[in-house]
Amino acid sequence: MNKVVLAYSGGLDTSVIVPWLRENYGCEVVAFVADVGQGAEELEGVEAKAKASGASECHIVDLKDEFAANYIYPSLKTGAVYEQSYLLGTAMARPVIAKAQVELARKVNADALAHGCTGKGNDQIRFESCYAALAPDLTVIAPWREWDLSSRESLLDYLAERNIPCSASLKKIYSRDANAWHISHEGGELEDPWCEPSDEVWTLTCAPEQAPDRPEYVKVGIEQGAVVRVNGEALSPLQCLAQLNALGAKHGIGRVDIVENRLVGMKSRGCYETPGGTIMMHALRGIDELVLDKMTRSWKTQLSEQFAQLLYDGRWFTPNQASVLAAAESLSHVATGEVVIKLYKGNVTVTQKCSPYSLYSEAFATFGADNVYDQKHAAGFIRLYSLSSRIRALKQTDNV
Amino acid sequence: MNKVVLAYSGGLDTSVIVPWLRENYGCEVVAFVADVGQGAEELEGVEAKAKASGASECHIVDLKDEFAANYIYPSLKTGAVYEQSYLLGTAMARPVIAKAQVELARKVNADALAHGCTGKGNDQIRFESCYAALAPDLTVIAPWREWDLSSRESLLDYLAERNIPCSASLKKIYSRDANAWHISHEGGELEDPWCEPSDEVWTLTCAPEQAPDRPEYVKVGIEQGAVVRVNGEALSPLQCLAQLNALGAKHGIGRVDIVENRLVGMKSRGCYETPGGTIMMHALRGIDELVLDKMTRSWKTQLSEQFAQLLYDGRWFTPNQASVLAAAESLSHVATGEVVIKLYKGNVTVTQKCSPYSLYSEAFATFGADNVYDQKHAAGFIRLYSLSSRIRALKQTDNV
Amino acid sequence: MNKVVLAYSGGLDTSVIVPWLRENYGCEVVAFVADVGQGAEELEGVEAKAKASGASECHIVDLKDEFAANYIYPSLKTGAVYEQSYLLGTAMARPVIAKAQVELARKVNADALAHGCTGKGNDQIRFESCYAALAPDLTVIAPWREWDLSSRESLLDYLAERNIPCSASLKKIYSRDANAWHISHEGGELEDPWCEPSDEVWTLTCAPEQAPDRPEYVKVGIEQGAVVRVNGEALSPLQCLAQLNALGAKHGIGRVDIVENRLVGMKSRGCYETPGGTIMMHALRGIDELVLDKMTRSWKTQLSEQFAQLLYDGRWFTPNQASVLAAAESLSHVATGEVVIKLYKGNVTVTQKCSPYSLYSEAFATFGADNVYDQKHAAGFIRLYSLSSRIRALKQTDNV
Amino acid sequence: MNKVVLAYSGGLDTSVIVPWLRENYGCEVVAFVADVGQGAEELEGVEAKAKASGASECHIVDLKDEFAANYIYPSLKTGAVYEQSYLLGTAMARPVIAKAQVELARKVNADALAHGCTGKGNDQIRFESCYAALAPDLTVIAPWREWDLSSRESLLDYLAERNIPCSASLKKIYSRDANAWHISHEGGELEDPWCEPSDEVWTLTCAPEQAPDRPEYVKVGIEQGAVVRVNGEALSPLQCLAQLNALGAKHGIGRVDIVENRLVGMKSRGCYETPGGTIMMHALRGIDELVLDKMTRSWKTQLSEQFAQLLYDGRWFTPNQASVLAAAESLSHVATGEVVIKLYKGNVTVTQKCSPYSLYSEAFATFGADNVYDQKHAAGFIRLYSLSSRIRALKQTDNV
Repeated sequence: MNKVVLAYSGGLDTSVIVPWLRENYGCEVVAFVADVGQGAEELEGVEAKAKASGASECHIVDLKDEFAANYIYPSLKTGAVYEQSYLLGTAMARPVIAKAQVELARKVNADALAHGCTGKGNDQIRFESCYAALAPDLTVIAPWREWDLSSRESLLDYLAERNIPCSASLKKIYSRDANAWHISHEGGELEDPWCEPSDEVWTLTCAPEQAPDRPEYVKVGIEQGAVVRVNGEALSPLQCLAQLNALGAKHGIGRVDIVENRLVGMKSRGCYETPGGTIMMHALRGIDELVLDKMTRSWKTQLSEQFAQLLYDGRWFTPNQASVLAAAESLSHVATGEVVIKLYKGNVTVTQKCSPYSLYSEAFATFGADNVYDQKHAAGFIRLYSLSSRIRALKQTDNV
Repeated sequence: MNKVVLAYSGGLDTSVIVPWLRENYGCEVVAFVADVGQGAEELEGVEAKAKASGASECHIVDLKDEFAANYIYPSLKTGAVYEQSYLLGTAMARPVIAKAQVELARKVNADALAHGCTGKGNDQIRFESCYAALAPDLTVIAPWREWDLSSRESLLDYLAERNIPCSASLKKIYSRDANAWHISHEGGELEDPWCEPSDEVWTLTCAPEQAPDRPEYVKVGIEQGAVVRVNGEALSPLQCLAQLNALGAKHGIGRVDIVENRLVGMKSRGCYETPGGTIMMHALRGIDELVLDKMTRSWKTQLSEQFAQLLYDGRWFTPNQASVLAAAESLSHVATGEVVIKLYKGNVTVTQKCSPYSLYSEAFATFGADNVYDQKHAAGFIRLYSLSSRIRALKQTDNV
Repeated sequence: MNKVVLAYSGGLDTSVIVPWLRENYGCEVVAFVADVGQGAEELEGVEAKAKASGASECHIVDLKDEFAANYIYPSLKTGAVYEQSYLLGTAMARPVIAKAQVELARKVNADALAHGCTGKGNDQIRFESCYAALAPDLTVIAPWREWDLSSRESLLDYLAERNIPCSASLKKIYSRDANAWHISHEGGELEDPWCEPSDEVWTLTCAPEQAPDRPEYVKVGIEQGAVVRVNGEALSPLQCLAQLNALGAKHGIGRVDIVENRLVGMKSRGCYETPGGTIMMHALRGIDELVLDKMTRSWKTQLSEQFAQLLYDGRWFTPNQASVLAAAESLSHVATGEVVIKLYKGNVTVTQKCSPYSLYSEAFATFGADNVYDQKHAAGFIRLYSLSSRIRALKQTDNV
Repeated sequence: MNKVVLAYSGGLDTSVIVPWLRENYGCEVVAFVADVGQGAEELEGVEAKAKASGASECHIVDLKDEFAANYIYPSLKTGAVYEQSYLLGTAMARPVIAKAQVELARKVNADALAHGCTGKGNDQIRFESCYAALAPDLTVIAPWREWDLSSRESLLDYLAERNIPCSASLKKIYSRDANAWHISHEGGELEDPWCEPSDEVWTLTCAPEQAPDRPEYVKVGIEQGAVVRVNGEALSPLQCLAQLNALGAKHGIGRVDIVENRLVGMKSRGCYETPGGTIMMHALRGIDELVLDKMTRSWKTQLSEQFAQLLYDGRWFTPNQASVLAAAESLSHVATGEVVIKLYKGNVTVTQKCSPYSLYSEAFATFGADNVYDQKHAAGFIRLYSLSSRIRALKQTDNV
């Protein structure tokens, strides 16, 4: 091993990994910092930190727009939600990061990739599945699965012994992962499902109880399955997300608290905040209600479940993903329209929606005469629709 | 036709149907009133009304407990939700009503069944599909698909001409259907999806804005997929529902406003209030989170979609329904536990949950050493899990 | 009604429909004959026959290549098979015919479309669903659902009374439908599922017992899910089909005898001969075996079932179809290779297969050391793969 | 480790494993031989062999009837077929073996389980997933993943050094696994998918070319999804299988040659012979054709795929399996009837079928008038069935 590119965050774990890699693999370590919208404070001084830890180079790559446009927005078109609640924020960020990490590895002629994920989580699988698809020739190093350091204290000691400065504290209650789409929280009291999350858990959104006492309405414009306007203003995907994040956070939107199944076979308790994403999901469903017929909508339910599973499980760069996405994109050709959403103390309510491709027609649905529907047709429909039940019942009577 | 049993509500439509059947089919009309929890006021004086309209008999049958225990509770075990939002309240009531109607028809030796559903809706299909399965030998009469009366005014005139008293007014904005599980609303301004429902639409639940300013917690006890206790008190299914309906209504829980696909091929806009049912769904999902492993939970997603479609579409008395339900009941063997739910201004939040069959283990999920999980195992898992991606990538490189 | 375009075959039914339409609708009748490969003898003299029946014009349109390239080949990519056996030959032909019929209607300024399908079959639904999607403004006339003629004899009498010549005989045992892909047979002794089809049923393929005593091998070349070469010769879709039909017919390939569920709610017994299509299906599956990974192949199983249902049910021109097809086409990007197939007395056996995108590797699959697979990895894989079972079992023990 | 129960076959691998376990784990080795119908010759002298290798005890357990009744027959009810071809013979045997092995371990107070599966195959996962579910407290030893012996030669040397007699030869071309249901073949020329299997591969069935020149008919009686009679004779599951195996083998039935996806992420080429099972599958499908309505049959397709995946993947003792099986068993309540099958040179053709629960009715399906179907009903059915297409088309025209 000559040179390894490490997905570096500046946190305690990756701060230890830099010297550990140098000592254990005798290789040069290039720090790779992906900016996926985790926030300015997390990026502040990260290059200096990386170099202080012993990294030969530190590359900060702004992936925010690519993340929003090529990962979040396509996923939204599929309607993917994991286990009925989780909007897949961490899962969506992994492929964009892994891809950029591999690109950097090629550029700097590295022969290995490393990450700081633990051996009990999903992220190791997500990263390494992407590596396998994009760079099967590069060696993968996952220090957490190799070393004997097993506590925060031992990591801090490791740095202290080497005089590497670190601002990390001994106690850190929650483990969090933030990006442009969401923030996740694990640890602390959350480890007991019989324990309600305390206020300290939540960092992005206001509590519903603290949210404004008056509802606010936002108008979301959608073109072919993509949110393109917020309150009439045309914006990039990332900008739309930022605006809706701010609005959602203010009104206590998008908090989720679940016990989920990790791909590694165990369950974990996680809290998530996805304010803007929650609003986007509701807006897109509002359009789906108008433009998808019954069978097509049921089909989309299958797509959503398929995509949620493969996204959660780190199978982004696979033919399976491409196929499910192609199906969803085909459906989104008519997903165009406007949706008005009411935000109030944690509630997201679609109150108005319209689409040029709407299949809804007041004339058809209501009482009056119209040219497409004759109520007498229903008699024939029902007769044939229930024919197998009728035949079954008649035959059973005959059998007796 | 000698005798027809009519599913009678006492409303304007069925009040007209009684004389219309006698005049057009020359038959005796037996009124059948199903009490599925629509409320005392709807049943008040209904027998007198039926007889005043010309019915020879009127049978009021209390189906509330059967509805809750044998239709609502089994459906809940499947997790069925139609088009991501609708909790299927009207659809669940149709089979229990149709079955009791057929039983009455057998008892009184009727040769026909009639209902007051219009020719544009789902309910005609649901009723008649049940009739086809349970009584294929009985004739079905659906006056709305036969007669020329096409306005509220013409119905009132019809009664006036025959001196049949009727308290119905000329104007009725909304069409509603209530039972122990929910109430639905259609019509009026709802016919325009670009129109927010007015306060007049909602009749059961308080608006989130009007709900108490302080959250309330409720503890729900679940045995094998059935809600059996509310705040520690053992109750029947119907009683659980009543208690949770009251709590949910108070806190603005369970309002839904959607454009849905009817089985007859058109879309309609409906508002629903299902306060207690919404709380039950969340409670059951809370237990599912604890007791179902990843693949099993994904499988249940398929069951839920299947059951939602067949329930909405009136296929209750079919082998398909029995099969999906058998699969769901198998899963619910371990769906036992306690869930604490916070109710606050429209929000339903599961805050605490536990189960003797929980697969969650703090010891497994967290950092420390344990006896079932060695982080080094993950390396092997990932390697095999991503092996096809690796092979694909390696082979593609070879191809180039 | 001024002018109606009739899907005309020259058989007894449509021969009657021409004068019946003129008499009952007072309209001009334009005969439309679709050549989808049903055979020269069926087309011979068809124009003269149409005019003798009273048609003002007769248009014979060659749709064979379009049928093969744009309907059969895309369907093949999805792997669609209806109820495990039926290769959907009649169903695939309906949309290409209906589309051309609508185009002719536009060209001749017709205001109605007619077909000769009976009221008990699937084809009426398939034709009219296509009409609904492509020409919702045109009136549809289905004489079989309107007239009182209900026997072959009455149809012949109808023509005789009008001195319209007709070569049809009074007795016709089987009802058949042929095109470039297949021929179907219904009626006669087939109406009793406890009756083996007689030799007279089959018209296209040789009986396995009569097929050559020596096997024959054919090499099929596939590019992106399309059969493009037969025994090394590059051919059009229609030509490939013709060659493989001849080979398959000679060796008794592709006979199917099933009781199937029609969309109208009843069952029917049908025999099908699809010699070339059966070979193509096996060839494509051979490539799928090489190029699709496990999860992707299971996903394709879902696509196949979806497409089979929607194709059988006449939903070709729908967004649902486009979406499923997009998913299948995405998968077929790597469906390229060569397959050798052995044909012997009804047996189709893939004996050799290769693909540049094959994920199979002798080196990986077998015993020796290799660079992608370390057997020790399996220990970790299994540990995590079965972790939820282990946890469940451990927890249950604790519970006791 | 004091005592380990080894799944012992008497072949080369497990002959080495006995002394290897004793030497490397210092434990007593109890040989467990499962008789799942692999044939008398494989069991002959197996106890003496085990003891000669150093086993302290050897238990031969006859699992044949349990295998047929509780594993094969339930799986048949689900219609499971893996990747369109493989009838899952090896996969079905693993859980019955593992369960009996665990039971023996409990009886002899063992603290570990061992098997001779290699680290590249599915069987290690299947065995160990069962162990995890049934005996999470027992240690699992998989020598193939631990030792350095990597060739047949080194295994023979290992035995020779210890003077353990062994009749195994140095060259063994094919790896085979036989039981009452099937035999599988891997290795040799099969490792090249561009190579047709030679005659030496097949051991159970006659080649179609060598099969009798005259077809033979067999009548199969089915009760609730179980084959219970062959040619009129009531037999146990195992006896039915034996009879149909003999018939199928004679007529060249049930050969399959595929490249399949192993759960460990790689592909392998396998040949399978399942003569009786293939006949049973066809017989059961024949009944399904008669008794399942359209939607139910499509639902069963999903069950089949689910069960095939979980059975192949070793998830027999899971709630997911129980749930899918419950759904399939519900459907099989009406799977009763008689099927006549023609066997001829590799072809299995259902020629006659009947069931008291048949939904097929000649009267309904054919031309004449009947009491359940009025052709005019079809007009209404089609109108509503295609309504969303019509509305879409009309709206699109309006948009233009």
